[in-house]
Amino acid sequence: MGTKDMIALCSDFKDKHDSVCIFGTGDFGRSLGSKLLQSGYSVIFGSRNPGDSRLLPRMAEVLNHVEAAEKCSVIIVAIQRDHYDFLKEFEEVLEGKILVDVSNNLKINQYPDSNAEYLAQIVPSATVVKAFNTVSAWALQSGSLDASRQVFVCSDDNKAKQQIMDIVRAIGLTPQDKGCLVAAKEIEDYPLQLFPMWRLPIWTCGGLTVLVFLYCVIVDIAYNAVKGNDVSVQLMITIPNRVFPIVSLMLLALCYLPGVFAAIIQLCRGTKYSRFPNWLDGWMLCRKQLGLVALSYAFLHAIYTLVIPIRYSVRHRADMSILNQIRQNITRTLEKPLAWRSDTYLALGILGFFFYVVLGITSLPSVSNAVNWREFRFVQSKLGYLTLVLCTGHAMVFGWNRFLLLDRYRWYMPPVYTLSLVIPCIVLILKLILIIPCIDNKITKIRQGWERPSSNKSGAKIKTYDVAL
Amino acid sequence: MGTKDMIALCSDFKDKHDSVCIFGTGDFGRSLGSKLLQSGYSVIFGSRNPGDSRLLPRMAEVLNHVEAAEKCSVIIVAIQRDHYDFLKEFEEVLEGKILVDVSNNLKINQYPDSNAEYLAQIVPSATVVKAFNTVSAWALQSGSLDASRQVFVCSDDNKAKQQIMDIVRAIGLTPQDKGCLVAAKEIEDYPLQLFPMWRLPIWTCGGLTVLVFLYCVIVDIAYNAVKGNDVSVQLMITIPNRVFPIVSLMLLALCYLPGVFAAIIQLCRGTKYSRFPNWLDGWMLCRKQLGLVALSYAFLHAIYTLVIPIRYSVRHRADMSILNQIRQNITRTLEKPLAWRSDTYLALGILGFFFYVVLGITSLPSVSNAVNWREFRFVQSKLGYLTLVLCTGHAMVFGWNRFLLLDRYRWYMPPVYTLSLVIPCIVLILKLILIIPCIDNKITKIRQGWERPSSNKSGAKIKTYDVAL
Amino acid sequence: MGTKDMIALCSDFKDKHDSVCIFGTGDFGRSLGSKLLQSGYSVIFGSRNPGDSRLLPRMAEVLNHVEAAEKCSVIIVAIQRDHYDFLKEFEEVLEGKILVDVSNNLKINQYPDSNAEYLAQIVPSATVVKAFNTVSAWALQSGSLDASRQVFVCSDDNKAKQQIMDIVRAIGLTPQDKGCLVAAKEIEDYPLQLFPMWRLPIWTCGGLTVLVFLYCVIVDIAYNAVKGNDVSVQLMITIPNRVFPIVSLMLLALCYLPGVFAAIIQLCRGTKYSRFPNWLDGWMLCRKQLGLVALSYAFLHAIYTLVIPIRYSVRHRADMSILNQIRQNITRTLEKPLAWRSDTYLALGILGFFFYVVLGITSLPSVSNAVNWREFRFVQSKLGYLTLVLCTGHAMVFGWNRFLLLDRYRWYMPPVYTLSLVIPCIVLILKLILIIPCIDNKITKIRQGWERPSSNKSGAKIKTYDVAL
Repeated sequence: MGTKDMIALCSDFKDKHDSVCIFGTGDFGRSLGSKLLQSGYSVIFGSRNPGDSRLLPRMAEVLNHVEAAEKCSVIIVAIQRDHYDFLKEFEEVLEGKILVDVSNNLKINQYPDSNAEYLAQIVPSATVVKAFNTVSAWALQSGSLDASRQVFVCSDDNKAKQQIMDIVRAIGLTPQDKGCLVAAKEIEDYPLQLFPMWRLPIWTCGGLTVLVFLYCVIVDIAYNAVKGNDVSVQLMITIPNRVFPIVSLMLLALCYLPGVFAAIIQLCRGTKYSRFPNWLDGWMLCRKQLGLVALSYAFLHAIYTLVIPIRYSVRHRADMSILNQIRQNITRTLEKPLAWRSDTYLALGILGFFFYVVLGITSLPSVSNAVNWREFRFVQSKLGYLTLVLCTGHAMVFGWNRFLLLDRYRWYMPPVYTLSLVIPCIVLILKLILIIPCIDNKITKIRQGWERPSSNKSGAKIKTYDVAL
Repeated sequence: MGTKDMIALCSDFKDKHDSVCIFGTGDFGRSLGSKLLQSGYSVIFGSRNPGDSRLLPRMAEVLNHVEAAEKCSVIIVAIQRDHYDFLKEFEEVLEGKILVDVSNNLKINQYPDSNAEYLAQIVPSATVVKAFNTVSAWALQSGSLDASRQVFVCSDDNKAKQQIMDIVRAIGLTPQDKGCLVAAKEIEDYPLQLFPMWRLPIWTCGGLTVLVFLYCVIVDIAYNAVKGNDVSVQLMITIPNRVFPIVSLMLLALCYLPGVFAAIIQLCRGTKYSRFPNWLDGWMLCRKQLGLVALSYAFLHAIYTLVIPIRYSVRHRADMSILNQIRQNITRTLEKPLAWRSDTYLALGILGFFFYVVLGITSLPSVSNAVNWREFRFVQSKLGYLTLVLCTGHAMVFGWNRFLLLDRYRWYMPPVYTLSLVIPCIVLILKLILIIPCIDNKITKIRQGWERPSSNKSGAKIKTYDVAL
Repeated sequence: MGTKDMIALCSDFKDKHDSVCIFGTGDFGRSLGSKLLQSGYSVIFGSRNPGDSRLLPRMAEVLNHVEAAEKCSVIIVAIQRDHYDFLKEFEEVLEGKILVDVSNNLKINQYPDSNAEYLAQIVPSATVVKAFNTVSAWALQSGSLDASRQVFVCSDDNKAKQQIMDIVRAIGLTPQDKGCLVAAKEIEDYPLQLFPMWRLPIWTCGGLTVLVFLYCVIVDIAYNAVKGNDVSVQLMITIPNRVFPIVSLMLLALCYLPGVFAAIIQLCRGTKYSRFPNWLDGWMLCRKQLGLVALSYAFLHAIYTLVIPIRYSVRHRADMSILNQIRQNITRTLEKPLAWRSDTYLALGILGFFFYVVLGITSLPSVSNAVNWREFRFVQSKLGYLTLVLCTGHAMVFGWNRFLLLDRYRWYMPPVYTLSLVIPCIVLILKLILIIPCIDNKITKIRQGWERPSSNKSGAKIKTYDVAL
């Protein structure tokens, strides 16, 4: 607020900043213009009818397009792609000017080429810079830049790019150089993305959740319903609290499986310079998200578990158990092994959850930014495997020998907890094999660049860091 | 530590950095000087008695003010505002120099004008830049910049500002351009602020807490006391665990109420270009803080609830219940509807809390910085409403039909949980109306810049992004 | 992915960026070259056998070392220190060039001097800049810069340093100026560090954990074993849940003890300009880590506590208690004082834990970066002491008068909870003394720079911000 009033007083400094021209008096143009004025730039709007400057910031000049363009070296084109054509009219004036394309599309791949490249094609004599499309008019207006302050900038002309990056910095945003104009496509797609890296993890998680849930419903509710017991009330808490830990453990193991695969592939190929299959690449890149989804399920499992003694049905069952002991005059003695087992799986679960949370905290951008590579790898790999071991142990001790008891096999289906142990056990066994010293040494050597001498080397698929021509 | 010793070795490079002059040998001047030396600048202190350089960094030169000023183009004025007057003595020497004002005040609005502007007035021939006031001497000394590394810089002269921003970067801090010198007032107020955005949310929260607490005390403790029961022990956990969820739910709803109001106002006015009333603007800007306060209460509610079965009085009551069943030879059967209800409100509460926490994590600066606007809005709006629906459902299922039972109306006061439902229900009903397709389309159109044609447009209060002249 | 394909199209702009030469076709050289190409630089590899460019990015030129060096002003030396010698061969060509040392060592202090300084010694006619050693080849390749994007840069030549910092920015990393070349040693050690600031806190925590654990084992398990009771099952949960809170409270108090010591030292010496003893300096710098370790133990304590009612042995004991009441026909009435005490220590514990968590969240880098110094100190000091008071109160009310009951002194050892109270009580008492107004005023004066006039001043150890010569 204050800043707006302040500007008045320094309006007498003219030559402090270049003046900037804005074509288009729409929402975004106005907001950006107003922000530029606040940062000490003089702003000239180019408008079809310069007389009607009703909504424009008062300190801005409003001229027709040609006059406005003549006065500035930087022109922000805040109009829609459909209207770019009209710029052809005064191509001469735009010669040598810097045109800043701030446009966004409504959906990904709306046009074959990016708006910025299209603009460069229409006004070939000007230099086009893509910028500002990641910022919203609302954020500029309200000044509350809660979401990203990053502005991606790209251009084929470095000097023009630097100039625009200076403007970005001046209005309090953070420019990020994305290279040449061809990157505009990527930049224009960016604000349309909705958690692209989270898609695979969330679908995986959703799929597993549905499968395990159905399995539980069949084994528990349907089985009992057939036997005449209605235990459908388990749908609310009991079943979810079986689904969450199982899926969480599976997902955690799935975070570490691709790393194991990668090591095996490198070991077999005897080099690290051949490209991994695409599915493995994609899988490895979303491990962090996979881990965070797994953590959120573990968190839910923890609360669902802690809530158990508060549940009415649980308390009722406990009461019944005592009443029965009284009425039948039995006294159940403390079974030491059971006490040990109960405490052990709880302790393992708590410790596993604790390291899970530590892993989650470390993947916060600001935390992972503050550690070096060695520390990051230490946490993500050492601590990660520790978590996996603890959680697998938790599930094993919890289930114990139940998978051996035939009466637990309802309709020949094994108890559900055994399902959760399949992937973790595979990962842990493979990992155990990989850290046998002689194998480990070989992998280390390969990762440091060593390659197995091979007769048909040229035939191998070599990762050449293609900057495809 | 190490760095200090290192500098010695590169003291032979003279022309690498400009030399910087510091007026004032106080705490801050010394710390800054020492830091500048470490970053390779040569530092010349201007002092009244250059002979006594006891506390100054050894590598720095110490001269009298005139000599020192003559040697450098940048002079850091690390003296108090009260002593600025003495600079008049050698105004000639300061002509064309860059004076950096690093001063802070002891309280907000201590002086009518900012220190930097006052300095510019006293030495009009020099260029004044405001900077470094947000950094503490202690932080510069200890090198542990745990808090902010941001240095706000402002000046009417862009070149001078750039030069100072380079110095800021060189000593490992992050400059932020705040425009012209008039912004100095704001910059000088910044380090004196104590969570300004948190004030409204915390007062709101405090007020509601007191009100709800008193209501609970009257309805529960006072009512029982009159009847002869002393239940004052509830003050420690039972009552707080009623206050926290109620206030938390109210606050969560209050986060979404202003957005609904804003939509209604835009709908009525038929434009988004008229300014919102001030109270609404202020309310909307502190929604994030409001939400975090609400989350902290939800967190407290969660732990207070989980702790229930550990409480001595709760365990005692459970024991009594069993003893009574035994002694009166009753067996309470499991009431299925009660079991469903108990599990349902627990499940709703857990899920609501989970999304609450996700919302909280997303509002961490480093996380919100890593998402684009579409993603940010998705989380804050979609996930936010989901949380509100889940939490409202949690409260509803928990209370169930109690508000219909007249015997629950103690002294004609409705059960306390009904209070918590008023604002959420209003918000949800209004929101439901607003997302009816025909209304939703209109709002979307308005938000994209459409305006209802109106006869008396010029009469309407138009938001002109005033950069007031 | 996309970016790689894009570059093709802008390969026709030649003069946009300087071309960069890379000596060494190893893993890191290739990755960096590929990244530079993507950012629009032309890259020329210098290689012993330029014919074999199998693994190199396709768009890069490959020449022999001399030819490559002649074409560029910036040469990235991506070869190992052992091979630096060979650069002597073509010293003439390297004259005036900027050599970028990107090397890392395998362990700290592997060589007496840093690699960059060694390089500068070998090719004295070139300018050496240290950079890029904190980035891993893998991160450059995969583009997933999950860990730090920070690149430390140092050089004795400022212009060369700026040039390299521009390159760093261009490939999407964040340069940080670390001063002159002598800082290279520190920079080279950085990626080899493994949480150096965490070492002292973790050893302290580990040591205390072992001591308290042994104490508990002796007092509880051994004592009972001697008496013929086997309570070894307590090892899993009961004992840990005694160790965690005790150590956590001790560590929390240890966070605030050095601050108290510092104040006392300043008070005695009558100045803040004398250096603290080294042990105190080291202690003060790791307070944040100490606090986070304490928080993690508090977190574990919280979950271990909440899990209590789920434990089989606890449920069994509760059942036994009821059965005994029935069979012996006793009814234990509710002891009001016990109910108060139970609820009080739970409430204190919950609130203490809550503020503990708030403290933890505030120490996340992105959060502490967003607050100013006054706010940071408010949270860390005011909220910190509040947490300490709450947690100490929690322990006191929990233990109550048990330390007075002689039968609790097994083998003359006091109950374990009293141990946890020693340090917190010392800290709180000292702090209480320090905030007595007359003492507090004096400290404030000293901290603002006041010094007690002293006869033998020159004899005092004065902190002169030595930039040791």
